[in-house]
Amino acid sequence: MPEASLVEDALARNKARHEHYAGLDYVRLTDGFSGWPRGTVFLDGRAVPGYPSIGRVLNLEQGLAQHFRAPFHAEEKIDGFNVRLVRHRGQDLAFSRGGFVCPFTTDRLPDLIDPAVFQAEPDLVLCAEVAGPGNPYLEGHPPEIHEDVALLVFDLMRWDHAEFMAVEERRALLQEHGLPEVPYHGRFTVDQAGALRELIAGLDARGVEGVVLKEEGDRRKRAKYVTPASVVQDLGAMGDALLDLPPEYFTNRLMRLVLILEESPELDRETLRAELGAALIDPLLNAAREHRETHKVAHHFCSRFRHRANAERFAEHLRRVPQSQIHTTVRSLEQAADGYWELRFDRVFPRISGLLGNFLSGGQVYD
Amino acid sequence: MPEASLVEDALARNKARHEHYAGLDYVRLTDGFSGWPRGTVFLDGRAVPGYPSIGRVLNLEQGLAQHFRAPFHAEEKIDGFNVRLVRHRGQDLAFSRGGFVCPFTTDRLPDLIDPAVFQAEPDLVLCAEVAGPGNPYLEGHPPEIHEDVALLVFDLMRWDHAEFMAVEERRALLQEHGLPEVPYHGRFTVDQAGALRELIAGLDARGVEGVVLKEEGDRRKRAKYVTPASVVQDLGAMGDALLDLPPEYFTNRLMRLVLILEESPELDRETLRAELGAALIDPLLNAAREHRETHKVAHHFCSRFRHRANAERFAEHLRRVPQSQIHTTVRSLEQAADGYWELRFDRVFPRISGLLGNFLSGGQVYD
Repeated sequence: MPEASLVEDALARNKARHEHYAGLDYVRLTDGFSGWPRGTVFLDGRAVPGYPSIGRVLNLEQGLAQHFRAPFHAEEKIDGFNVRLVRHRGQDLAFSRGGFVCPFTTDRLPDLIDPAVFQAEPDLVLCAEVAGPGNPYLEGHPPEIHEDVALLVFDLMRWDHAEFMAVEERRALLQEHGLPEVPYHGRFTVDQAGALRELIAGLDARGVEGVVLKEEGDRRKRAKYVTPASVVQDLGAMGDALLDLPPEYFTNRLMRLVLILEESPELDRETLRAELGAALIDPLLNAAREHRETHKVAHHFCSRFRHRANAERFAEHLRRVPQSQIHTTVRSLEQAADGYWELRFDRVFPRISGLLGNFLSGGQVYD
Repeated sequence: MPEASLVEDALARNKARHEHYAGLDYVRLTDGFSGWPRGTVFLDGRAVPGYPSIGRVLNLEQGLAQHFRAPFHAEEKIDGFNVRLVRHRGQDLAFSRGGFVCPFTTDRLPDLIDPAVFQAEPDLVLCAEVAGPGNPYLEGHPPEIHEDVALLVFDLMRWDHAEFMAVEERRALLQEHGLPEVPYHGRFTVDQAGALRELIAGLDARGVEGVVLKEEGDRRKRAKYVTPASVVQDLGAMGDALLDLPPEYFTNRLMRLVLILEESPELDRETLRAELGAALIDPLLNAAREHRETHKVAHHFCSRFRHRANAERFAEHLRRVPQSQIHTTVRSLEQAADGYWELRFDRVFPRISGLLGNFLSGGQVYD
């Protein structure tokens, strides 16, 4: 349990903010503070610990040698968004990475897991990825989730304790409660970079994002490592928003790709260069063609909600995003035949929209 | 002739700086000032006008409609660096775009043009591109210049007059004096975007950078337009310096490429995506492999000088560049069998060098 003064201190030092959601008041950390990670949520004097960042390595063999001292588990990294699920005073809630209640995941929670786990383990925090084409935040999704969304748990914590349950204990507990979990790819030792590279090759061929490596024992060191396929997918997913993202979105991913290939020439498949070129050309080319009709560049989303009120809360959340950056326009909210509420909205990229308009109409640039 | 007070005003307002070169004192404009472009050089009360920027269009048909009102000439755009050549008190000098004396071009001037033109036309300013694998500034060069450097004149001005000679008058004068000029590709009218696109297709197939379009008559409006091949070449030439250039280097060029293809699908050749992917992967991949030996990413240059003193002046100029950014290390200065002095130097990219070193040794990144 956090000390009583901690939340007040964090608020006073501008490291935390009050938030409200459907009658619920809570405080979230906007920065790491006093041992609690950014995104930690304080509710009635108790803490849902934030989910800490996992460092990325770009060279597997050296990365293992430098960071790991004990055997580790390899788990599949899922291309979705990170949530923490908890039960609080009988209400099941999903918090986003930043510590906001996520109206979408909170609404869909009964579809995604059996919440009975919270009766047996009331202080559990389920750390999970929500992924699929129906997710309201991201353009990309894992190739094996074909519709709507799925939830896969990858870590367990407990209220008031900023630490993860050991992998084997976690797996046993998830299986006991029939909860969906990320695919497990085995236990490795530090000298098994070769075996891990073979694993990565298989994941790459399936279009999987990558792996998260979790050391056994007290250090519980972690690292993530991705596949060439995931880099190409990421670039293609946002290729039409080229000038609305930080340019590092593109340069960091090119750097990742090249360092993976440097270490693992066996991943350098025949078609990779053409795939990369297509990821960078085609989404933007299609956007330029559509711009002649629509005069903007937008990504279209359709997310399903059980309750109309949650869809409206989500839409309200979208409206509050500053309009000078990437902004969102709700198109429709309609009930489908199966009773779900379908929220259709567009994420509009103003910078590329404006520049395409200028250039397509013959504008000159002095660059 | 500029008014006597103009140079003093520009200096007082921090729009100009005093410079020195081998006993010569001059002032260069660091910004546009009072109608004179940035890079204008003042020598003994007279002005060598700066070379103004030419705006780029990314859609030819709309660009012509929006900017041109009279027929225009299409000239080949050369992938080199811009210089202005003048004779001053019997000394032939080359000034860079920014208004510095270029020790390299000044040294090589007798190899590049017949300076007799300055006897007949002492107030002429030759605006030219210096290009080729032996140029000391740029990684790329036109495919048709295989060794050392060549100089191609593309505009004429006169001392103290910030305006270009009309294209036909310029071509006649250059031919009369046997001076090398950029290839001329014909006269077009504003409704001939289609014919111009056919020209571009031919230039693209040859790997030429693009065209500069120069309107006839008093407006003398100008615009430039490049080929897909030039975009891919530019990206490949600097692909290993990915993180040492402004990220816009990459994003602007992708934007150019896509808008060219949007207008001219006939330029979208079978292999373009693979070429783009290779330009972005292979230079950086080779740099990562070499980094294991050299621990840095560098481009190697070898430029030839007639006079040792000029090579030393050039090396001195390189040493003054701030070491925190891209910096230069002289490797050797040796006289070749033909009497020329060969200056070998490396341009080192510190940011990508450091990051590759960190990642190759297993460093973790939180991105």
